[in-house]
Parts: sequence; C-alpha cells; structure tokens
Amino acid sequence: MQSRNEWRRMKGRREGASNSELFTLTYGALVTQLCKDYENDEEVNKQLDKMGYNIGVRLIEDFLARSSIGRCQDFRETADVIAKVAFKMYLGITPSVTNWSPAGDEFSLILENNPLVDFVELPDNHSTLVYSSLLCGVLRGALEMVQMAVDVRFAQDTLRGDSVTEIRMKFIKRIEENLPAGDE
Amino acid sequence: MQSRNEWRRMKGRREGASNSELFTLTYGALVTQLCKDYENDEEVNKQLDKMGYNIGVRLIEDFLARSSIGRCQDFRETADVIAKVAFKMYLGITPSVTNWSPAGDEFSLILENNPLVDFVELPDNHSTLVYSSLLCGVLRGALEMVQMAVDVRFAQDTLRGDSVTEIRMKFIKRIEENLPAGDE
Repeated sequence: MQSRNEWRRMKGRREGASNSELFTLTYGALVTQLCKDYENDEEVNKQLDKMGYNIGVRLIEDFLARSSIGRCQDFRETADVIAKVAFKMYLGITPSVTNWSPAGDEFSLILENNPLVDFVELPDNHSTLVYSSLLCGVLRGALEMVQMAVDVRFAQDTLRGDSVTEIRMKFIKRIEENLPAGDE
Repeated sequence: MQSRNEWRRMKGRREGASNSELFTLTYGALVTQLCKDYENDEEVNKQLDKMGYNIGVRLIEDFLARSSIGRCQDFRETADVIAKVAFKMYLGITPSVTNWSPAGDEFSLILENNPLVDFVELPDNHSTLVYSSLLCGVLRGALEMVQMAVDVRFAQDTLRGDSVTEIRMKFIKRIEENLPAGDE
C-alpha cells in the first residue's frame, strides 16, 4: 500500500466537519484500488463516475424519503435542493449555487471545502485524475431517477491547484416517464 | 455492474439512521470492486482488512483530536471508548460490550444493526465473504497506534443469517514505544 502513503497527508481539517473521516478514507481506498486496476486516469475517472451513477440511482430513494421533498418546479429549485439539502445531508457541506447560464439551463456548485479530499494530495503521475468523479455520477444517477437528464463535470478542483472546487451541471432534457402497459 | 444489482436490495432502514447512506453505498462499491479483482472471498477479506488497517492508523489521530480522550487505564476502558465514543462518532451506532473472557483480555461488540450492510444481500457464490472486514482492520490499525496489539474478527454476521453482528476483540500485548535514539 505504498501509494496510500503518498496520497494521504493531513492537509488541515474542515471547520465544523461532520464525522465523515471514515467515509473520506474509505473513498480514498476505493480510488487507490481503481488506480491499481485501470491503466490510466481516464479509465479511473470513468469507473468512478459509473459507480457514482449506480449509487445515485439508489440514494435518491433514501433522499426523497428522508427530505420529504416533492417535485421541483424548475432547474433553479433543483439546484437549491441539491446544494442546501442533499449536500448538507450526505456530505455535511452547503455549496453555493452560482454562474447561471443566461438560458437558466446551467449552473455551478462551488465547494469551499470538498470533504472527499480532506487527506489527499495527487501524486505527480496522476495529474489527470478527477479524484471526486464519483460525485458527478451520484448527481447524474439521482436526477435521472426523477426524470432529469443532466451533464455533470468538475470545472475546477482544489486538488489540481484551483482555489475552490466547482461542479458544473447542465440540464439536458426531461425524461419521459414510461407509462405502464395498458395504462393510458 | 450487474453484480451491484444482485447485492443491493433495500432491506429496511435503520431506526434513527445517521446520514451515512452515501458511505454505505460507497463501501459497497469498494467491496464489489475487490470481488472483481480477487480470485476468492478469502483474498477479498484479507484486502479489506488491510485497507481497514491503513485507514485505522490514520483515523486514530482524528479520533484522539476530536474526542479529547487520553490513555485508557485498561482493556475494559478501551472497550467502552470503542463502543460508546468511536462507533458512535464514525458509524452512528453504539454496540454493546459483552462476553468478557474470565481473564479480561477478550470481549465482544454486539451490533444490533450494522450500517455497512444496510442495502446488502450476499449472493450465493460469496458465502465466505466477510463483507465488513474493513472494520476489523480499522480497529486493529487504530489500536496499534496507541500501543495495543489486538486480534479482531467477526464471530457473527447478520449477512450470514446470524441474529446480530458480533465483533470479537482479543488483547494480545502492549507494544513498547520506540524511544528516539539517544533518549534514554
């Protein structure tokens, strides 16, 4: 587990951190394992996104049950629910919602502190790793379950030297609900 | 990711669950990945334990800082701190401490509900998988950092049909602190 030691150096603690260090370190073990398994960062990013997607399609049920939130009226409301309820619930942080596109179909979530990277430094040979890709997949998967197709990607990442972490979300389309056969 | 779907079936929700579903599902993704990577359950169990160990040796620093707990007087106090402070802090549950050996060097942690297995069913071809092995490693690694060598294993597991989950901990020895050279 040599690579673990390169990766994890205590980098200062989040203010008011929720008790998520066990999660953070376990996530790190997952990324480390994938870096062993796959040839290049691109593949690892894809795999993390795919895993996240599978988590998202399951997590949404828990989220709807726990939050008692109903259908959002528009993408702006969706953005607020994601930032203020979902991120708070599962990661203990509240990103700000910003950089709306004029058409209102694109926005950014700005994370001052990303709990997933609390103990992490990227080694030089993983400069194209998008370490927290899982989150993109989770968002994509969860929203698909409530009939929204979105594109999610990291636009900035403190791990790569940016001052904040920015997740960019773009609305693609509303997914038609499949009516059960004979139910017209 | 076919196997994911076999594994995760909503199995009812913990009472008063902390917001750990994202952690639970991410842990599931890690176990699933290891099951793809390694030949047999025995290897997966070992790998999870090893990962847990690496997590434990890091987590202890966070734990000591957060809990402000000093050196335990004896193994009984250690048991109480693990159950009432550490499990509470990181998994949101408080296992009961029981089944002490007459010599006081062995006890069991009984988990009524193991948050790691909330959405999990073991497929038939993984009957020897010790799904939550990571926890054993975490405990072993963390205690080693405070000079206690312990043996940790699952004695019962609800995933295998037992009515509770039982983690058995055995004190092996106190580890001598290495004195810095020339510091006698």
